[in-house]
Amino acid sequence: MPQSPPPPISLRFVLIDTSHPGNIGAVARAMKNMALADLVLVNPRQFPDPEATARASGADDVLERARVVSTLAEALEGCGFVMATTARERDQVFRVYEVREAALRLVDEARSAATAGHSVAVLFGTERFGLTNEQLQAAHALLRIPANPEYESLNIAMAAQLIGYEILMARRGAAGVAAVPREVPLAEAAAMERLYVHLQEVMDEVDFRDRTQSGIRLMNRIRRFLNRAELDVNEVNILRGFLTCVQNRRRMAGSPR
Amino acid sequence: MPQSPPPPISLRFVLIDTSHPGNIGAVARAMKNMALADLVLVNPRQFPDPEATARASGADDVLERARVVSTLAEALEGCGFVMATTARERDQVFRVYEVREAALRLVDEARSAATAGHSVAVLFGTERFGLTNEQLQAAHALLRIPANPEYESLNIAMAAQLIGYEILMARRGAAGVAAVPREVPLAEAAAMERLYVHLQEVMDEVDFRDRTQSGIRLMNRIRRFLNRAELDVNEVNILRGFLTCVQNRRRMAGSPR
Repeated sequence: MPQSPPPPISLRFVLIDTSHPGNIGAVARAMKNMALADLVLVNPRQFPDPEATARASGADDVLERARVVSTLAEALEGCGFVMATTARERDQVFRVYEVREAALRLVDEARSAATAGHSVAVLFGTERFGLTNEQLQAAHALLRIPANPEYESLNIAMAAQLIGYEILMARRGAAGVAAVPREVPLAEAAAMERLYVHLQEVMDEVDFRDRTQSGIRLMNRIRRFLNRAELDVNEVNILRGFLTCVQNRRRMAGSPR
Repeated sequence: MPQSPPPPISLRFVLIDTSHPGNIGAVARAMKNMALADLVLVNPRQFPDPEATARASGADDVLERARVVSTLAEALEGCGFVMATTARERDQVFRVYEVREAALRLVDEARSAATAGHSVAVLFGTERFGLTNEQLQAAHALLRIPANPEYESLNIAMAAQLIGYEILMARRGAAGVAAVPREVPLAEAAAMERLYVHLQEVMDEVDFRDRTQSGIRLMNRIRRFLNRAELDVNEVNILRGFLTCVQNRRRMAGSPR
């Protein structure tokens, strides 16, 4: 889990003829969540708009820096590789990437593009009809999101979220992942053994024995699930403390043993 | 790409105290997009609602079949394995899965659960605050979505979309892979609750209390590691049997309490 944002990426989301301003806001939020910042709007029906701002939530900065243009050509200025999102089956002439592979390709292309001062782009069509065949002409490849074949059409912001997520995963995979540090150390094997000896002692004292004839020793079954819990040092101490209390109380009460 | 929907999965999304009906609709759509159908709402602020229906788009069927309940316990009836979504860093005591690994685990557990007529659940908290620590007690593990560390909080429907997507990918990937069946079913949430009630009773009887001032209730710390152990039905019975023996012996011994 990276604790700092990934380095900037030369990658742009282009929304074409978007109908609902709420969707534009939701895309801005989804982008910022996934550490993307470059948003271009081609002929949005209504923008700026309070609904867009509301849905952007804390991503107003992405929304404010969004550029509004009137043609796809303007939106693609300075762009090399372009990928178009699609839900429908299209002509076989396009190479179709599923979103996970698409993200690897995009991150790779963005890296190359950056050295040339360029960018890569992902195109999103209208909510109802997606991209026209003419708009698709600007794309090098298609991006497809796997979905329920009986209900394939994702909301545009959902699609942006998924693509952004896979791009983040690809960026991170490329950067090397730092493991989450464990705050309290795992109990060592010897401490676990002492716990089991203590537990067996108490089990004998309270006469807890296997009545199921399962063939697996009771203590082994307990060890399995306590090992599975991956107890840390403090947690072993809690269990030891409980066992000690059981013993003390029994002795105080004048147990016959 | 499968041309037919994947086989049904015994997996439930549980939305707790959701504030905005629009989000409920958007979750329903996201679920249907990813071939999920079982939605349970715990105390939604406003439902049914026209905004929910509008955002559900073509997923009205999922919305109509959603069950509304008033407690988390009801929502988890018939559930074994439970995963909780979280954006915040939580105590390291929970096992935390990133969404991709979480999905593999969920699909695997759902398959085992189905053979026992059970289900698995994913919990979503409120839009503003997520899940409370108390609600987290019902979970075996946490699910985390990788995001921009400077802006981590995803919209709830976006989170549902990503989780559903990874689940679909896992189902698809697993289609040919035979899961190792779980021989004994996981203990249901209600059985775990009964175990904790019993344990608290014994803890009181032997006067086992927190002496560390850690600020986290002792019982909560125990619940966490026992949840993490993912106890099956037999294992819960072993622990219950042990607790009963402790009580019987103390009573036979004429304990002063």
